[in-house]
Amino acid sequence: MATIGFVGLGNMGIRMARNLVEKGHRVQAFDLNAEALRGAKEFGAAASAQLADVTKGAEFIITMLPTGKESRAVWLSEEGLLKSARAGAVLMDCSTVDVDTARELGKSAKTIGLEMLDAPVSGGTIGAENATLTFMCGGDRATFDKAHLILSAMGKRLVYVGGPGHGQAAKICNNMLAGINTIASAEAMVLGRNLGLDPAILFDVIANSSGSNQALLLACPIPGVVPAAAVNKEFKPGFTGSLMLKDLRLSQLAAQASNTPTTLGAVAAQLFTVLEAVGLGQLDCSAIVKLVTGEIGGSKETKR
Amino acid sequence: MATIGFVGLGNMGIRMARNLVEKGHRVQAFDLNAEALRGAKEFGAAASAQLADVTKGAEFIITMLPTGKESRAVWLSEEGLLKSARAGAVLMDCSTVDVDTARELGKSAKTIGLEMLDAPVSGGTIGAENATLTFMCGGDRATFDKAHLILSAMGKRLVYVGGPGHGQAAKICNNMLAGINTIASAEAMVLGRNLGLDPAILFDVIANSSGSNQALLLACPIPGVVPAAAVNKEFKPGFTGSLMLKDLRLSQLAAQASNTPTTLGAVAAQLFTVLEAVGLGQLDCSAIVKLVTGEIGGSKETKR
Amino acid sequence: MATIGFVGLGNMGIRMARNLVEKGHRVQAFDLNAEALRGAKEFGAAASAQLADVTKGAEFIITMLPTGKESRAVWLSEEGLLKSARAGAVLMDCSTVDVDTARELGKSAKTIGLEMLDAPVSGGTIGAENATLTFMCGGDRATFDKAHLILSAMGKRLVYVGGPGHGQAAKICNNMLAGINTIASAEAMVLGRNLGLDPAILFDVIANSSGSNQALLLACPIPGVVPAAAVNKEFKPGFTGSLMLKDLRLSQLAAQASNTPTTLGAVAAQLFTVLEAVGLGQLDCSAIVKLVTGEIGGSKETKR
Amino acid sequence: MATIGFVGLGNMGIRMARNLVEKGHRVQAFDLNAEALRGAKEFGAAASAQLADVTKGAEFIITMLPTGKESRAVWLSEEGLLKSARAGAVLMDCSTVDVDTARELGKSAKTIGLEMLDAPVSGGTIGAENATLTFMCGGDRATFDKAHLILSAMGKRLVYVGGPGHGQAAKICNNMLAGINTIASAEAMVLGRNLGLDPAILFDVIANSSGSNQALLLACPIPGVVPAAAVNKEFKPGFTGSLMLKDLRLSQLAAQASNTPTTLGAVAAQLFTVLEAVGLGQLDCSAIVKLVTGEIGGSKETKR
Repeated sequence: MATIGFVGLGNMGIRMARNLVEKGHRVQAFDLNAEALRGAKEFGAAASAQLADVTKGAEFIITMLPTGKESRAVWLSEEGLLKSARAGAVLMDCSTVDVDTARELGKSAKTIGLEMLDAPVSGGTIGAENATLTFMCGGDRATFDKAHLILSAMGKRLVYVGGPGHGQAAKICNNMLAGINTIASAEAMVLGRNLGLDPAILFDVIANSSGSNQALLLACPIPGVVPAAAVNKEFKPGFTGSLMLKDLRLSQLAAQASNTPTTLGAVAAQLFTVLEAVGLGQLDCSAIVKLVTGEIGGSKETKR
Repeated sequence: MATIGFVGLGNMGIRMARNLVEKGHRVQAFDLNAEALRGAKEFGAAASAQLADVTKGAEFIITMLPTGKESRAVWLSEEGLLKSARAGAVLMDCSTVDVDTARELGKSAKTIGLEMLDAPVSGGTIGAENATLTFMCGGDRATFDKAHLILSAMGKRLVYVGGPGHGQAAKICNNMLAGINTIASAEAMVLGRNLGLDPAILFDVIANSSGSNQALLLACPIPGVVPAAAVNKEFKPGFTGSLMLKDLRLSQLAAQASNTPTTLGAVAAQLFTVLEAVGLGQLDCSAIVKLVTGEIGGSKETKR
Repeated sequence: MATIGFVGLGNMGIRMARNLVEKGHRVQAFDLNAEALRGAKEFGAAASAQLADVTKGAEFIITMLPTGKESRAVWLSEEGLLKSARAGAVLMDCSTVDVDTARELGKSAKTIGLEMLDAPVSGGTIGAENATLTFMCGGDRATFDKAHLILSAMGKRLVYVGGPGHGQAAKICNNMLAGINTIASAEAMVLGRNLGLDPAILFDVIANSSGSNQALLLACPIPGVVPAAAVNKEFKPGFTGSLMLKDLRLSQLAAQASNTPTTLGAVAAQLFTVLEAVGLGQLDCSAIVKLVTGEIGGSKETKR
Repeated sequence: MATIGFVGLGNMGIRMARNLVEKGHRVQAFDLNAEALRGAKEFGAAASAQLADVTKGAEFIITMLPTGKESRAVWLSEEGLLKSARAGAVLMDCSTVDVDTARELGKSAKTIGLEMLDAPVSGGTIGAENATLTFMCGGDRATFDKAHLILSAMGKRLVYVGGPGHGQAAKICNNMLAGINTIASAEAMVLGRNLGLDPAILFDVIANSSGSNQALLLACPIPGVVPAAAVNKEFKPGFTGSLMLKDLRLSQLAAQASNTPTTLGAVAAQLFTVLEAVGLGQLDCSAIVKLVTGEIGGSKETKR
């Protein structure tokens, strides 16, 4: 069993840390939020008083933070983890951050002789809860091999994607597609319904044809078609529109940096920005269907 | 065995007619193109001297025409098929046309006591060749049941979708999604490659994640990833960009008519219009990747 | 003074007919809406009992109808104006319709020896009220010259654009640009405000720079910047979002028919479709700013 | 007369520096490019051996650099200008950079008691040559007043826009609009031409109607309509597509940071990315018309 430093006990992190504890590892946790830290203590993690404490004796250090800004601060600042991590420790940033930040973290770690993976996840809070996350890992393969046991305590599918930053790159390419598919499936299903088609029949046609895609199969946004879909649960997430927007934005930053035209990706990012702007970002991302049906207004007063 | 009138011997129609003959039906064929008509004679169809002749004694009449304009002319004009079809004949328009035209044909047929299906296909020339087409059928269910034997001689999957026009509606909803996925998959794969990812690894990640879709799985537009993909065969179609554009445009007409916002569908239609404008419409639709890589220019002279 | 048949007494037509009467012409008016017809009688028009009556002795016949469908019916049907118009009459369709319809009307008129203009207008109800409309005229120049006196009773700027359909073509090209500019100006002004800029200063910068355009100058959608703008009058139209959507859709039909990629035009059409879908289409078109600010939701209930 | 440090002698900077010399100022210039530095010596500037030398005795320090990255390095690094600038010096960054960088520079200067403006320009190399640039200035108004004499030696229109970063913010809002207008005008003019309109007549209609905008008036991309337009000079820039892309990207970064949906801005950025990808970024930005006409391909070999 290993000693693991863990920073970032949000919706995802708290569940991941719990799985590590349950698999018998010693987890030294830290979060600025005292309540989250108390929660981690309840399931058996050791609560660190300050950031640097999580690295004490830790063979593995994991972070799960909101954005690249926090990742940079936690790893690279004067009090950051790279200063206190012991020689030989294996570092993993499981946050979803921009490719440049991931590359810089990997490089900074290597400069001082430490091994680091960028290892963003997919699978959402359900995957975190059930230890069925997918990890997309960038860094040295040897590091990936060392991290395998630890990652497999939190997830089911571990993919080695390539060098530093490649984990993040793979994730945003996938999620850009997922974001586009989410909107496109809403457009196709609403169009069909507006043309008089039975949504269940249309779903069946598409699911067996060239338009088939995961967003439709798992989260068809017309009520009653796919029982487990968020539309049937008042759009309780799942994966929120705000998180989808975050990933689409990261894809657009990467597209800018690599001079890649991603026209549909750009439009998808804009439509989720509208969803956020109208105040619906905390719903499941399939709520983008409301922009297609027009069900975002509602108050009679605004209409004339 | 049945007597079948068949109008429209293009790339699709000629193959469909041949399958009918091979299954033992008597096919009375017509096309304005004399050469196509000769081709039909070679495999055993009877060549009709004029349009109205195909209906003589025909229990089934099938058309496979380029656009709604031709469908209207062939069915509704003074010399059209509705004038000469015998009582009790089952009519099928397998062309891909706009929803309004399909509805009008169905209604016109019903007015004079004839049964008609709109029965557009998917599967391309390969599906037509191998009798593995999918038929999406709109009209009365009883008509669909009568047509079953005939359609199954040309295709493998017969779907009853609903009333008149619903076959067309289902097809364009599916193909709008397919068109979007084709572009989106190109964007995601090129972005990943530009970020340094190994395309085969990225493909594998996406194929097992939330971004998965048929356009990627069957036609990943990066060379060497999916062996059967058109990109590995100089973009020999398959399904041309021009045909994809045709279907995307039909989807936008239907979206206009039904007041449905289909923003990604609209942008997808525009990007295929650009592909057509630069002269690449006859390539497989996955050649849209050239707009993402910029490999459409080429001649040094235009560049500065 | 001339005898003028006038069909279509909506918000625009009623004002145009009144101006003709006030300039001393004899106006024979018709509308399916009895109330509108009574209104026309009040200011001195003769009310025709049926459509064909407006042509009796009429040297000029004008129609001002909602869409191409009505134009076709009113001009081309069995009881249509082309049947009853006297030889030598000058015909004008001032409706905004699709280019194909305009061309067909012009051609049908010519076939039976009548002269016809497509003469769509810009300037809105204010221009109709004050006889300051712009007319964009397609047809023979000689016809345009004959119509000059009559058109100048209703408008200030008469432009001869070219052959049949060219009036419509010019209008939709202009209005496509106007629609794009309306959205783009909203995006730029809201972006600036969100970045902390004083809107009045930003307006002044843009109005004197490369971003300047009529939509911004006349209808800047940030409150308080341009006093006469609709945003300062609860978006009382002016030119409604629904009408802008109509023209953008016509531009997209023409773009399809002529194989022209108009990507921004297509996206603009989609955004106005969303505005319509959320129930705000009857506001001035500058209300599209609500999609940028997110002020379309409003009811706390829809948000979570 | 003032002593002025000047860093960045590219196409713009070299012309701006020359104007300062010609107005009688002492200019101490620096650039990593030795040839550019020699050019500056020829018209009477003093060539500094290293970056820090430009600040010696300088009352004003001006930078004109490609991107925010260079601005950060030149101002903030260990050898940067903020280290060597004398007390009381007025600092101006005339580069076009992202808003965040501009704010950080202003803040860093203020922290050590120096006054700084972000003062990006519009007007291109012609404006730089003729001292007719527009400066959009962010910072303290007192600083703007002190800089007035110096800026007016290089430009004609000096606008005080607001606090730190506001100069950049105003510029990208304007240029986002200009970029959209450039594309939209191309779409409208090509659509009109494809519909059979005489481009000169269409231009005249739009120029006097609601679609009018600066991009059309100054740079109508149809040959022969606006004599001075780049289309008539083989798209010799003017303002290149690459620079327009740079500004559109900055606008999208600012839109992300401020949660502003700018859908048309995003699509415009993508279309210029395509122009760049096909190798035409060094042409005048009005060459975007080639994406609308399809004249980017050209080599018969790529077509089938």
